Amino acid sequence: MSNMVFKLGGATVAALALAEPALAQEAEAAAAEAVSGGTGYILNTLLFLIGGFLVMWMAAGFAMLEAGLVRSKNVSVQCIKNIGLYSIAGLMFWVVGYNIAYGVAEGGFVSTNWAPYWMQGVGEADTDTGYSVASDWFFQMVFCATTASIVSGTVAERVRIVPFFIFVTVLTGVIYPIVVSWEWGAGWLDAMGFSDFAGSTLVHSTGGWAALMGALIIGPRLGRFVDGKVNVFPGSSIPLATLGTFILWLGWFGFNGASQLAMGTIGDVSDVSKIFVNTNMAAAAGVVVAIILTQIRYGKADVTMALNGALAGLVAITAEPLTPNVGMAIIIGGIGGALPVIFVPILDKMKIDDVVGAIPVHLVAGIWGTLAVPLTNGDVPFMAQLTGVVGVGVFTCVTSGIVWFALKAIMGVRPTEEVEVNGLDMAEVGVEAYPEFN
Amino acid sequence: MSNMVFKLGGATVAALALAEPALAQEAEAAAAEAVSGGTGYILNTLLFLIGGFLVMWMAAGFAMLEAGLVRSKNVSVQCIKNIGLYSIAGLMFWVVGYNIAYGVAEGGFVSTNWAPYWMQGVGEADTDTGYSVASDWFFQMVFCATTASIVSGTVAERVRIVPFFIFVTVLTGVIYPIVVSWEWGAGWLDAMGFSDFAGSTLVHSTGGWAALMGALIIGPRLGRFVDGKVNVFPGSSIPLATLGTFILWLGWFGFNGASQLAMGTIGDVSDVSKIFVNTNMAAAAGVVVAIILTQIRYGKADVTMALNGALAGLVAITAEPLTPNVGMAIIIGGIGGALPVIFVPILDKMKIDDVVGAIPVHLVAGIWGTLAVPLTNGDVPFMAQLTGVVGVGVFTCVTSGIVWFALKAIMGVRPTEEVEVNGLDMAEVGVEAYPEFN
Amino acid sequence: MSNMVFKLGGATVAALALAEPALAQEAEAAAAEAVSGGTGYILNTLLFLIGGFLVMWMAAGFAMLEAGLVRSKNVSVQCIKNIGLYSIAGLMFWVVGYNIAYGVAEGGFVSTNWAPYWMQGVGEADTDTGYSVASDWFFQMVFCATTASIVSGTVAERVRIVPFFIFVTVLTGVIYPIVVSWEWGAGWLDAMGFSDFAGSTLVHSTGGWAALMGALIIGPRLGRFVDGKVNVFPGSSIPLATLGTFILWLGWFGFNGASQLAMGTIGDVSDVSKIFVNTNMAAAAGVVVAIILTQIRYGKADVTMALNGALAGLVAITAEPLTPNVGMAIIIGGIGGALPVIFVPILDKMKIDDVVGAIPVHLVAGIWGTLAVPLTNGDVPFMAQLTGVVGVGVFTCVTSGIVWFALKAIMGVRPTEEVEVNGLDMAEVGVEAYPEFN
Repeated sequence: MSNMVFKLGGATVAALALAEPALAQEAEAAAAEAVSGGTGYILNTLLFLIGGFLVMWMAAGFAMLEAGLVRSKNVSVQCIKNIGLYSIAGLMFWVVGYNIAYGVAEGGFVSTNWAPYWMQGVGEADTDTGYSVASDWFFQMVFCATTASIVSGTVAERVRIVPFFIFVTVLTGVIYPIVVSWEWGAGWLDAMGFSDFAGSTLVHSTGGWAALMGALIIGPRLGRFVDGKVNVFPGSSIPLATLGTFILWLGWFGFNGASQLAMGTIGDVSDVSKIFVNTNMAAAAGVVVAIILTQIRYGKADVTMALNGALAGLVAITAEPLTPNVGMAIIIGGIGGALPVIFVPILDKMKIDDVVGAIPVHLVAGIWGTLAVPLTNGDVPFMAQLTGVVGVGVFTCVTSGIVWFALKAIMGVRPTEEVEVNGLDMAEVGVEAYPEFN
Repeated sequence: MSNMVFKLGGATVAALALAEPALAQEAEAAAAEAVSGGTGYILNTLLFLIGGFLVMWMAAGFAMLEAGLVRSKNVSVQCIKNIGLYSIAGLMFWVVGYNIAYGVAEGGFVSTNWAPYWMQGVGEADTDTGYSVASDWFFQMVFCATTASIVSGTVAERVRIVPFFIFVTVLTGVIYPIVVSWEWGAGWLDAMGFSDFAGSTLVHSTGGWAALMGALIIGPRLGRFVDGKVNVFPGSSIPLATLGTFILWLGWFGFNGASQLAMGTIGDVSDVSKIFVNTNMAAAAGVVVAIILTQIRYGKADVTMALNGALAGLVAITAEPLTPNVGMAIIIGGIGGALPVIFVPILDKMKIDDVVGAIPVHLVAGIWGTLAVPLTNGDVPFMAQLTGVVGVGVFTCVTSGIVWFALKAIMGVRPTEEVEVNGLDMAEVGVEAYPEFN
Repeated sequence: MSNMVFKLGGATVAALALAEPALAQEAEAAAAEAVSGGTGYILNTLLFLIGGFLVMWMAAGFAMLEAGLVRSKNVSVQCIKNIGLYSIAGLMFWVVGYNIAYGVAEGGFVSTNWAPYWMQGVGEADTDTGYSVASDWFFQMVFCATTASIVSGTVAERVRIVPFFIFVTVLTGVIYPIVVSWEWGAGWLDAMGFSDFAGSTLVHSTGGWAALMGALIIGPRLGRFVDGKVNVFPGSSIPLATLGTFILWLGWFGFNGASQLAMGTIGDVSDVSKIFVNTNMAAAAGVVVAIILTQIRYGKADVTMALNGALAGLVAITAEPLTPNVGMAIIIGGIGGALPVIFVPILDKMKIDDVVGAIPVHLVAGIWGTLAVPLTNGDVPFMAQLTGVVGVGVFTCVTSGIVWFALKAIMGVRPTEEVEVNGLDMAEVGVEAYPEFN
């Protein structure tokens, strides 16, 4: 029995060769070794890389969605906020976030490892994990950025760049990683049976709660709620918002699909395929439900509701994209698509100013999706789901609330009224988004 | 001899171990089993998933292309139509389309299985097919959506949302799946030797015929053809149309490349590579030919013709992207790129109003590509190709014509003249695409 | 001992079976053969295909970046230039470029093989290379196109389409391939120890030098430098420029990651993962540094500098994305991000008109990245790096200078003053980019 590594061109392949059937156990050990040098490792890693670049692309989706839904005088600021938050998220998740998220004790609350992540050397592999840890780091990092993107949309058009970036620094470096450690890091929520496949709660609700606290503490845009009247500020570009939604939809195949975390077996890759289908169908149902509901309610098919319907369907299926059959995925996503139609007017009544509808889409649909997991996954207790939703909610509201309050007290978050009325672009970035068109 | 499955981390790998050379036949059987649990299955499935998300992305490409080529007063409607049709296509292809397309008897005309597609359970694989059927379903579904996207562009700016979506429902749920069943479902066209690698006829001409029938039955936009004069309505955003074209070009690598349907052998993956090259070169030739022809004809290099030249080159190579060498791919795509330059003015003379040029691009170039297959693939009889073109054309024209006529008679397809003049956006979706710029 | 190929559905898999440990050497030979028909080949090819479509997508990124940074009267021309240059690059790299780049003698200067690349036949594989040569061709071709994209941005708004396309024809067919042959084709720079992992010098500096020669020979746009005053012409659409930057960032994972050239071993795929992380972090650092510097220098976080900071960070890490640890990647990218902030004003002072900042981003950061390689890769001598930078610079400046001068002398490069003032769109392509908004 021997375990050999052959070279051919640039490629090295491990091949298992077994001499005698009597030596089956030895063979098994050799095979395990061979596998660690083999195809399963490569395919698992490849899943993280493909999933990772698809989720990275979602940063562009949020940028376009938000650039399309704010007024033209604030578009440049929204652009720099989105490329800036993605950059900060990456840096902070490296400095400390990753080890907070995955360095927690089993069943624990907070990691004691607050150190940067240093990668392996050239040509070195992580044979004990069965995939390249660097690929996993990349995949986890882009999730971290998504959380910050959600906040950016809600508090648009009235927050200065510097305090926004400071908030993002804390959110992506500390708050989000701690939440993640509770479940994906095998902390206390995981120990009690909570389940969140790709992050309806961990990513989307966390972002949604942080956005909600921002909206409450910062207050609405000037002129938005005047004398009991709700003024709608139409977005500057529906095609950009549509493009952003399509980008997010595309990226979500990576978000949910690669959260299977492995593609080295036929069972795993079949599950990834199932997740692709369910993810797509939930979004499709969200679109159709939003179109039908707005057609009935307003006599017109609201295009921004259709876009948010897609996103809410996607958020809803994210907590469990694997166990539903197609019909259940459609129901979960379809109900998700109804939530923005219902909750956007409710937020307006409560005078909570959510520029892009991120709270209904990411927070409300995230809660719905998380609580719906037991409908299709019998192993998950409803109370664990409820505990997860509440636990993450309380923690995120308290911590992000403290940060928003501190920023408000120390440096101020909003621009002057004059700047807000004229648009933040000239004051904050010195560059109009469309200098020739206004 | 034993066939063992080893676990390492989350990864399972099947390894073949053979004790004695005398047992070669037994070994072969064991290997086949190992393969069914192995790498070939995973790679085939991965091809469908990558190809699938690339073709899904084409829905965004059509949305941007069309949003850029309609006038700004109709852009929001075009956006909701595109995200809506993609959603409806997915739902209808699930409800009944997939089983119509692939449940037909060998050599038959219409499937008797009109049932939804229910996926496999968690962790289950489709070992008899050699790939995950769910991944194949996903890949086939996004093709179905493409067909509807083609129609959307031609009949833009003058069709209300509700009748359009009803047409899409029938097209994606019934008409397209029946056409597909004839060839890819192993129906009568396949039996007679017709060949259409990735759908020049099945996808693009089907969409093109349905678009043509729409244009004929619905009639041109108001003011388009007046007193024998052809009025050109310039599109609202050339960069969005350019973006859409680049998205489509990118997606086409999935469209044609993954239509190889397998990547688990070196021959298959080499063929996929060949298809990538040919697909790219056909599009490149289409661009260059369109630029040269318009430069000669009009003294200016027409940018929308260059974009349509790329798309026509892509459609033309789609019927057979594998057998041509690079030179033939350039010739096939280059002739494709000439077709919009020739046929856009002809359609204008015939007073057929095709807003984005989808009929020359998808129908005419689709026919050209299909008829050109025998030039590079000696196994394909020209008469079979002609029969396929005519058969699909007659069927699609009759069925889609009936649907358009019925919609016109029952509910009306067009908005009022006032709405059409003011733009459909305010009347149909209540949201202007660029509220600050007009 | 036997080497068997089994068929299952459409999939063929090579399995190695070894009878007796005594025959280890025979087994090794058989395994090598099996590998050549096996998984390593497929995975290496797949890396080229995925990397290739990601880099192809960068063509759209350049198109959007440039469409956003030119004035609206020149946007249509910028669109056709970008889709045209990508097409020409593909055709020229086929006609002669590929064999110039890879047909050079070891240590040589210029290939003697100036013939087109003809692909393999259907079902044929390139077992001697360990990957499909067609996939490699595709991957190399999209790099070639990138070089031309860089030029397009610098000389925007003042060059007619026809001379621009002629320049691109020479650049992509001859100049760039010769430069590539020196290093990746194993020519004289490779022989002396020069190292350029993914093309900081070969791609980005080559494009940058060609752009610089264009800017010098063609001169600045009318009204840009008047009476010692620098007039800034703001770009027409910041969100499109942002979208373009995100597209480029996404595509760069293919650009750098697939330049590992192999994914068939766990070491290779781990290295690809490492490259993904370093690439991302360098860009992130570039953004943050550019934001901080402009905030300090101008009191405002300049959004176009943030975008160029991302790109400069990406260019800087491209020469060596593998050997740095995360911290070094951040430093290399962060310094990269500072370069546009420093060099854009310097170019302005020198009255060199670079419309999109491509010279600081691609040339200056490319030089920086190339010279920084020895900081993290001890095998690379600094003098070799310096020689490569100078050698490529001199060659590209001389050859591209000759072409620009010849074009200027023979046919003229610029439009009339009237056309330039009115915008090139109407004169050159006959289609305004935004006909309704001006």
